[in-house]
Amino acid sequence: MKIAIDGMGGDNAPQAIIEGVYKALEASADIEIQLFGQKQAMQPYLKDHERLTVINCEEVIEGDDEPVRAVRRKKDASMVKMAEAVKNGEADACVSAGNTGALMAAGLFVVGRIKGIDRPALSTTLPTLDGKGFDMLDLGSNADAKPENLAQFAIMASIYAQQVRDIQNPTVGLLNIGTEDKKGNELTKAAFGLLQEAPINFIGNVEARELLNSAADVVVTDGFTGNMVLKTIEGTADSIFSMLKGAFMASGKTKVAALMMKSNLKEIKTKMDYTEYGGAALFGLKAPVVKAHGSSNANAFASAIRQANIMVKHNVCATIDSTISKEN
Amino acid sequence: MKIAIDGMGGDNAPQAIIEGVYKALEASADIEIQLFGQKQAMQPYLKDHERLTVINCEEVIEGDDEPVRAVRRKKDASMVKMAEAVKNGEADACVSAGNTGALMAAGLFVVGRIKGIDRPALSTTLPTLDGKGFDMLDLGSNADAKPENLAQFAIMASIYAQQVRDIQNPTVGLLNIGTEDKKGNELTKAAFGLLQEAPINFIGNVEARELLNSAADVVVTDGFTGNMVLKTIEGTADSIFSMLKGAFMASGKTKVAALMMKSNLKEIKTKMDYTEYGGAALFGLKAPVVKAHGSSNANAFASAIRQANIMVKHNVCATIDSTISKEN
Repeated sequence: MKIAIDGMGGDNAPQAIIEGVYKALEASADIEIQLFGQKQAMQPYLKDHERLTVINCEEVIEGDDEPVRAVRRKKDASMVKMAEAVKNGEADACVSAGNTGALMAAGLFVVGRIKGIDRPALSTTLPTLDGKGFDMLDLGSNADAKPENLAQFAIMASIYAQQVRDIQNPTVGLLNIGTEDKKGNELTKAAFGLLQEAPINFIGNVEARELLNSAADVVVTDGFTGNMVLKTIEGTADSIFSMLKGAFMASGKTKVAALMMKSNLKEIKTKMDYTEYGGAALFGLKAPVVKAHGSSNANAFASAIRQANIMVKHNVCATIDSTISKEN
Repeated sequence: MKIAIDGMGGDNAPQAIIEGVYKALEASADIEIQLFGQKQAMQPYLKDHERLTVINCEEVIEGDDEPVRAVRRKKDASMVKMAEAVKNGEADACVSAGNTGALMAAGLFVVGRIKGIDRPALSTTLPTLDGKGFDMLDLGSNADAKPENLAQFAIMASIYAQQVRDIQNPTVGLLNIGTEDKKGNELTKAAFGLLQEAPINFIGNVEARELLNSAADVVVTDGFTGNMVLKTIEGTADSIFSMLKGAFMASGKTKVAALMMKSNLKEIKTKMDYTEYGGAALFGLKAPVVKAHGSSNANAFASAIRQANIMVKHNVCATIDSTISKEN
């Protein structure tokens, strides 16, 4: 299997990306990697590998580039070239840690939508207290959504949870203002009935308060709300950890307590760190497009490559395609 | 000043409510309280007080009652009677720790809207790391909102922040998917321009990740999103505290560390506990209607009464009324 990589995306590119690529090549003997990027910038970290091809591209899409314009104008950018490799059948999937909006645009305009999918969605696996995690989508691929979009999101994420995360008959919850069936805004009230009819294990509405308590294996919502909830989890966790750090550094006594708790606290931070679960995946495209976290180190990037690898092996996109065409 | 109290609402009613009432009477020599509820249930906790009147009501609105139906049918309920006292000019404000939806319905149907206010909004003060806190609204009074609603929410909360929380020229942020001006869903994109024109100190879009870092003194959003963000903050904080508790109880060594950190950890929990900031207030009604947290103890309920007291003293409703009529 062939995976195309954007060597220039993310805070730690190209070094962490290239190190991640070598880790992935070591871990899986069945993958070949095409690495796109500025050869001059990448050179210091490159060494020969029989399953690695390096393709020089002079342009780079930056984190603050306007996504759609960047993808349209920077035709020689590593991210665009990587997506073209997938489009042309030269690669089976692609992975980038760069500009999320630009990657969504490259996925939509270059890789292309599955027929019958109205809107692709961005999904990630978030932590739960029991360590199983849950998939939430859409995280902002589209700010506004229609009820039918939410039903498609649920079908796509159920297939992913089953085939990639190996969860049999995954439960699907609709993120809502209360658990009662009739609760919600216009969107969720209309989506509820569609989710009941969809070929998924729909368990009804779930509340934001219960997300980290494993409310459901898959949680669907519109991109605006999903983005808010994701960032609120991140922001709240960061704030509490920063207060804890302050408390542990407060005095000689608390510093001793910090030493005594070191491994236990590290475990909690690891549990809350959703980059450990891999990257975010764009569902609804003709091939797997995986977005690694912008701050990915080599390990995180290697795990995003592994995720793309599993998505290809388990035919996630083909299964989404056949399920959606049956529905329509 | 006269404040009407629902003696039967909340998890710890009537005992905690009545104890809170006595605390409020002690703290403020200028308030008179009308306490509505089942005399028989309240009797064990009652003692004579010259500024306390007890009014017997046989019905109680329960936490799981359907809000609008409960307010319409249970005409002798303590919550409805309390709201009627305000409507009839017998009280200046009212406070309940009961069913939030029912209190919003009682506020809307009994106390009544300020002329020109399209939708009332539920607002509360949430914690920030610097201890100042911020007001967020709407928290679910209306699941769907129009751009004009968001502009009115911003005006009302700015007046509250200035007159009750004593913040000069409070900053107002629009909760959004990114900080750039053009970002957002249809609602926030349309609201942005209205907020720029409103008589407030609008500072643009704020992201959910920065809320606890004092992104703005007032943060406006629709009721669906506000409810999601509020519950996500609660759920994430609860989850992390529960993991921390597990970590501190893991072994003899960690238990010793827990003892060493006890006061520091308590400080963090207190900082994150937004019931410390008082109750939630319904803005846009003809008189202050305050919702104390359902799990309120005597201190929390007394602070909700104090909040109603300050709202009356500082003419918050009259100021909202005159500002909105000038705008329209």
